Amino acid sequence: MEVFIEPIGRLMNEFSKLPGVGKKTAQRYAYRIISMTEEEAREFAEAIVNVKRKVRFCKICGNFTEGEICSVCQTRDPSTVCVVKEPKDVVALEKLHEYKGVYHVLHGVIDPMNGVTPNDIRAKELLERLAAGNVKEVIMATNPDVEGEATAMYLAKLIKPLGIKVTRLAHGIPIGGELEYTDEVTLSRALSDRKEL
Amino acid sequence: MEVFIEPIGRLMNEFSKLPGVGKKTAQRYAYRIISMTEEEAREFAEAIVNVKRKVRFCKICGNFTEGEICSVCQTRDPSTVCVVKEPKDVVALEKLHEYKGVYHVLHGVIDPMNGVTPNDIRAKELLERLAAGNVKEVIMATNPDVEGEATAMYLAKLIKPLGIKVTRLAHGIPIGGELEYTDEVTLSRALSDRKEL
Repeated sequence: MEVFIEPIGRLMNEFSKLPGVGKKTAQRYAYRIISMTEEEAREFAEAIVNVKRKVRFCKICGNFTEGEICSVCQTRDPSTVCVVKEPKDVVALEKLHEYKGVYHVLHGVIDPMNGVTPNDIRAKELLERLAAGNVKEVIMATNPDVEGEATAMYLAKLIKPLGIKVTRLAHGIPIGGELEYTDEVTLSRALSDRKEL
Repeated sequence: MEVFIEPIGRLMNEFSKLPGVGKKTAQRYAYRIISMTEEEAREFAEAIVNVKRKVRFCKICGNFTEGEICSVCQTRDPSTVCVVKEPKDVVALEKLHEYKGVYHVLHGVIDPMNGVTPNDIRAKELLERLAAGNVKEVIMATNPDVEGEATAMYLAKLIKPLGIKVTRLAHGIPIGGELEYTDEVTLSRALSDRKEL
């Protein structure tokens, strides 16, 4: 990046750390910052520092929160717990404005190939939480990939003996999708999980 | 953005100000910041404030610089001046490592439809610079669009009486391009500007 003066090269380097940002995009972002007022740039910088200072993990569910306990854990029905891989999955579900229960963020899924064991995700915390009673249903909402499925199976095996109902998000043909272009695994799953009308 | 807690929503809002960044991308960027160490986030924030504090415009050519005069103006052959619209055009040309002259950044092009007159770009500064003598050639490197062409024509008219050679970047079929898919205006230009082999 020798064609850039140091402060610009340095800022481009920082922007390059964001997911999917290459040199060209980093340059566009840096130039946008230069064209901002000093006040605007200061606010941008403050928002970055601020998010690191204020955002913590909820002691109960592990989602992002400002206080000790997140607002979902504080206000919602604790008898249904939806287990997800990451905080962004909570966002996806919350956008539906349909789910009224609470969450449990694992912060990962079991992935032995990459050295991620049950001890590396918030599995123990989930079991402790369930052992305290009052939970009637646990919805496994990990992704429908190998690791997500394995994690859901593993946790279900440990949870069922506690007498708690364990469910899994439905798999099948996406709405608007076409049979012809649905992959075989999904189609096979849609067939075996067929519902009576 | 009600599903996000305030510090995250605020940071997403800042990222949304960058060119081409929508809500989804802003969320990914914000989550990446959260997953950084406090030290890394602080450095990111500092790079933003730093670029605003340190980057100025070169008093001669108008390009970004840290000091009063940019390193290109300080060290290179001042007898050839390449006129460009924006600092990023200097970057594009510098990447070639071919051009040995200096630049003049207009910070815009004449665009009467959008109220940009010659007084709104660094045209006067260019003429003053040329009046000081020593310049043998001015290369017009504004974009080959209506405004860029008009700006090049306008400036050429004012510069030629000073006895300075004015040139324009060549237009034609891009290397690797195909005649069949070249637009008519470009093809017509490539024909009229044909060179003897």
